[in-house]
Amino acid sequence: MANIDQVAVNTIRVLAADTTAKSNSGHPGAPMGMAPIAHVLWNNFLKFNPKNPNWLNRDRFVLSNGHGCVLQYSLLHLFGFAVTLDDLKNFRQVDSITPGHPEAHDTPGIEVTTGPLGQGIANAVGLAIAEAHTAAVFNKPDFTLVDNYTYCFLGDGCLQEGVSGEASSLAGHLQLGNLIAIWDDNHITIDGDTNCAFTEDVLKRYEAYGWHVVTVKDGDSDLAAMAAAIKECQAVKNKPSLIQLTTTIGYGSTQQGTHGVHGAPLKAADIKQLKEKFGFNPDKSFDVPQEVYDLYAKKAASGAAAEAEWNQLLAKYAEAYPAEHADLLRRLKSDLPEGWEKALPVYTPADPAVATRKLSETVLSKISSVIPELLGGSADLTGSNLTRWKEAVDFQPAATGLGDYSGRYIRYGVREHAMGAIMNGLAAYGTILPYGGTFLNFVSYAAGAVRLSALSHVRTVWVATHDSIGLGEDGPTHQPIETLAHFRALPNCMVWRPADGNETSAAYKVSLNHKTCPSILALSRQNLPQLEGSTIEKASLGGYVLQEVEGAQVTLVSTGSEVSICVEAAKQLAEQGVKARIVSLPCFEIFDSQPKEYKLSVFPDGIPSLSVEVMTTMGWEKYTHEQFGLNRFGASGPYLDVYKKFEFTPEGISKRALATIDFWKGVTTRSPLNRAFEQII
Amino acid sequence: MANIDQVAVNTIRVLAADTTAKSNSGHPGAPMGMAPIAHVLWNNFLKFNPKNPNWLNRDRFVLSNGHGCVLQYSLLHLFGFAVTLDDLKNFRQVDSITPGHPEAHDTPGIEVTTGPLGQGIANAVGLAIAEAHTAAVFNKPDFTLVDNYTYCFLGDGCLQEGVSGEASSLAGHLQLGNLIAIWDDNHITIDGDTNCAFTEDVLKRYEAYGWHVVTVKDGDSDLAAMAAAIKECQAVKNKPSLIQLTTTIGYGSTQQGTHGVHGAPLKAADIKQLKEKFGFNPDKSFDVPQEVYDLYAKKAASGAAAEAEWNQLLAKYAEAYPAEHADLLRRLKSDLPEGWEKALPVYTPADPAVATRKLSETVLSKISSVIPELLGGSADLTGSNLTRWKEAVDFQPAATGLGDYSGRYIRYGVREHAMGAIMNGLAAYGTILPYGGTFLNFVSYAAGAVRLSALSHVRTVWVATHDSIGLGEDGPTHQPIETLAHFRALPNCMVWRPADGNETSAAYKVSLNHKTCPSILALSRQNLPQLEGSTIEKASLGGYVLQEVEGAQVTLVSTGSEVSICVEAAKQLAEQGVKARIVSLPCFEIFDSQPKEYKLSVFPDGIPSLSVEVMTTMGWEKYTHEQFGLNRFGASGPYLDVYKKFEFTPEGISKRALATIDFWKGVTTRSPLNRAFEQII
Repeated sequence: MANIDQVAVNTIRVLAADTTAKSNSGHPGAPMGMAPIAHVLWNNFLKFNPKNPNWLNRDRFVLSNGHGCVLQYSLLHLFGFAVTLDDLKNFRQVDSITPGHPEAHDTPGIEVTTGPLGQGIANAVGLAIAEAHTAAVFNKPDFTLVDNYTYCFLGDGCLQEGVSGEASSLAGHLQLGNLIAIWDDNHITIDGDTNCAFTEDVLKRYEAYGWHVVTVKDGDSDLAAMAAAIKECQAVKNKPSLIQLTTTIGYGSTQQGTHGVHGAPLKAADIKQLKEKFGFNPDKSFDVPQEVYDLYAKKAASGAAAEAEWNQLLAKYAEAYPAEHADLLRRLKSDLPEGWEKALPVYTPADPAVATRKLSETVLSKISSVIPELLGGSADLTGSNLTRWKEAVDFQPAATGLGDYSGRYIRYGVREHAMGAIMNGLAAYGTILPYGGTFLNFVSYAAGAVRLSALSHVRTVWVATHDSIGLGEDGPTHQPIETLAHFRALPNCMVWRPADGNETSAAYKVSLNHKTCPSILALSRQNLPQLEGSTIEKASLGGYVLQEVEGAQVTLVSTGSEVSICVEAAKQLAEQGVKARIVSLPCFEIFDSQPKEYKLSVFPDGIPSLSVEVMTTMGWEKYTHEQFGLNRFGASGPYLDVYKKFEFTPEGISKRALATIDFWKGVTTRSPLNRAFEQII
Repeated sequence: MANIDQVAVNTIRVLAADTTAKSNSGHPGAPMGMAPIAHVLWNNFLKFNPKNPNWLNRDRFVLSNGHGCVLQYSLLHLFGFAVTLDDLKNFRQVDSITPGHPEAHDTPGIEVTTGPLGQGIANAVGLAIAEAHTAAVFNKPDFTLVDNYTYCFLGDGCLQEGVSGEASSLAGHLQLGNLIAIWDDNHITIDGDTNCAFTEDVLKRYEAYGWHVVTVKDGDSDLAAMAAAIKECQAVKNKPSLIQLTTTIGYGSTQQGTHGVHGAPLKAADIKQLKEKFGFNPDKSFDVPQEVYDLYAKKAASGAAAEAEWNQLLAKYAEAYPAEHADLLRRLKSDLPEGWEKALPVYTPADPAVATRKLSETVLSKISSVIPELLGGSADLTGSNLTRWKEAVDFQPAATGLGDYSGRYIRYGVREHAMGAIMNGLAAYGTILPYGGTFLNFVSYAAGAVRLSALSHVRTVWVATHDSIGLGEDGPTHQPIETLAHFRALPNCMVWRPADGNETSAAYKVSLNHKTCPSILALSRQNLPQLEGSTIEKASLGGYVLQEVEGAQVTLVSTGSEVSICVEAAKQLAEQGVKARIVSLPCFEIFDSQPKEYKLSVFPDGIPSLSVEVMTTMGWEKYTHEQFGLNRFGASGPYLDVYKKFEFTPEGISKRALATIDFWKGVTTRSPLNRAFEQII
């Protein structure tokens, strides 16, 4: 069979074999097995312009089985994206744009970062929500600005991961007809045949979720059936679709259909027979038939034409709807509306004590009308996280009678991990700034997604309430100890733990203004007083001197709910003639980015320092000489009793402040910020 | 309706109202709604002896919707476990045995720690696997030592969590007929009606997983239907069962059926009408009708009799099968076979360089025959984690032809979170020592389960391979940076990162001997040389001086794959006349537990120290003056290239060692282990 479609399919297969062989690393099996569907989808359906991978109304393509990225890199190359043959040859080499798994931040045409299994399909749900919302907000009669599909390839591994189940259940509930997932049903996982661990009826499960399901029996060669299946799914407007595509992993290899081709390059002899079988010159590598380039160039040209047409539509839209047009263009730059920070509430010490979760609610309520791209939600803890502003409309299919797609509040259900991964998809779409609420302790359920937010440089915001033993009665199962250390240790992730209203406003200010970094806002359940000395400006530096005192003998450093207890401790100490200055450090990562001179003014040489935070001390040694924390699990009880049990009281702090002063007496204390060499960041 | 069953049901409801009212905190809704099924199950089916909550062949009861723990505490009290009315009155108070969510470690009769949603049902799958395995190993003709069921209550929240889907899919595959789950289908979650986010067809989904499903329409009062449903499920031997039980949350409250009764105590007037409606004295609290105590005492007595009979069986078993009997009793004490450590391999520097994942495989191969309770597995990475010894039989239903229930190797599928939660159930059963493999980076997917391993003091072992940028080509999506810090910050969790064969043996030795603490073994993909100076004994202290040198100017401290690079660096430094001593610190937590004198001998005053680890520096400031690490994401490439890119080479380390010496010249360096006061641990 030498028709051009088949040549194109085989070209993809041979490129996958060549690329993994050249790097002597990677996964040829899925790319070779999925080459036919990739060809059908990309050449016949997918809407894109390789010259502008950021065109808003492009279809989104997600490779949830990201280990098969050679497939995606090959497609990007063949269709004319800025991925060269040399880039393919540099597959999995240091500083290439073709890393071992697809990274959105590195490679033109990659929408989201995948590889950790189950993430991509959940990202795709986010991209589909984003499209539905953007269409509902911006489309007008005669102006269909946005009508793209999101297509997602996924493997057995993705289907086994819980995060995909969570996201798929929600996608069914939300009736996302713009989402089409294609399951590479090759019966092979790393441990061998799927029979050994994965014998459920996947299609029935997806039907139970409310999806439309289709089967294509011959995914190796029946291109017409594949096209028909995609067409059928496109026509289903109120359900996401799953296509079961039976394929042969590593099709063409002598080891096809076995896990031998899953994660290791083909041997030289195998590649030779593969090329011969497919009519390729066995002595050549990375040899793309010109007719394939030509075929795909035609498709690319039609995509460019489609974008040009769309740009004309956009120009007319600008005339008819100048405000919406301006709003859309602003969003696409990730810029927030000029002066939005003026909506942030400011407090004085005369204002009443309020929980920071409640202060966060006030911020959200005030900025929701100023920042229309804010799209919030909660993993079924709305009343506890206080994530919903009063007038919010739910993002729901209109058929439910509970909201509509223009709604800006998502009921995620008890699905923290999916929420995190969906937020990554929402952020990746380009028109939305997502935030999501849960208890801080349960952000850990979503660790896999948070890590990818950080790695892919997307702006997502976690409203993480009930941030410590201060949640009280729910007890140790719900009281974070290790959580802040975990996410403070994660690169490119901001962790904020504001101490009062001004610091809460600062946390939002910095988090929302930072375009390429996720944030976790750790917020108290319990009321906290408005502090003397806090301002949005100072807190926006990540750390600052809350109370300075001449001749200080000790620096008390704290965050969140413990700052005000430190203030009380300092008063007690003053009564004993001991001088303590106080530093509030709501965000390590932002403080670290300040000039050294400023940092040393906050943590100067010559004064011993003591950190106070009701959770692990890990990470505090970087800033302070001594640490008062909780390196054990908490306790269930009214929160004041719990604080007392562990001595997080003015007395307990004072005692340790005196011990600190005593211990460091006569020793020349250097600021811990002085270091012998720079860290690799 | 005043029959005794109904009185008992209403007693449970009233106790739930009283208990949450007294503590002014907690969740009355689920307990009041599930009181009927709880009564039916506990009084008519559940096999237990309140005087011995550890009887091996008891049925296991798991409250996956752990926020409803007042239900469980009330049952424990009413049936005569060591939970008093005073304990109920102390619900959610500091240092009570009735914390806000059930904790296995605290309360007699609580099998596993629940509350974080989805965990309990996955634990139940582990308990059911454990029963099936224990029965297969120990039951003999005429000796049915083990035939218990595992029952699990769960709510909508549990069903939405991905971990429950993962575990349920595996349970269906494994055909666990001994598992019966009961879904409290009350249509209410915290955000309101389940219509807002959870509209999938749950029963159809569970059928797709291979479960038997039953519906009981009137879970409020049709006790006979509930009993019939349980009976039906007991009879299904090759499928786990899910009973959909339609209930009214907060049944009896004026707010029944709304989320108003989910998470807040009933108001006084509401409790008054509740008691009047149920024929209770509205002026009395915690008032249990004697007839209910009597009824349940009868059930408790029958349970005690059943255990007595079982003990007779066990005595006969001891005669017929003395070896098996001794083995079983040993396992139940969590003791390992005497002298098992002799099976651990010992290495000398003459032995070849080997990856620690491979060294781990050798350990597992050697100890598998010595420790029969070892039950391992991998989340579909067997060939990469090297978790399976050659002769292992898979734990599979015999019908699959792939193994049988006496098999000791579980194919978990790509389900890390379920694997973690299932291991918690396996460990809780009492006869099994579980371990499970995945890449270190994906232990994070299971963070919610690992946290509960630690909190509930169970012995589970993670074989966490590909532990750093040293995994090379797979790139940043798979390279842990924050992971070790995360789990080192988790209380009661050991993290090991061995540097060679002896340290790998030590990691297993200490991890398996520690009965009440989970471990994570971080293991290299790449080969590592056998070190001069390492021994199992020294490494078992958590940290030790690998190479001492008189007049040392700097201490290099490292773990795992970087220790041998530090050895090379020390040689380079010696050539320049600079003396460096080397400390290997494979396990922070075990080192921390050593006497201070020993610790100061490893990290003495007067010598500046530099840590070297190819991941976040967070946590190292506790031990060392300077830190060389990676506070950014890694890179995709051959691992030596990646190490070079970030200067984790002898040269890169030497350079920083010199900077450290220079920076601390003239300063009296205290060991960072000297502290002003003790930490709360």
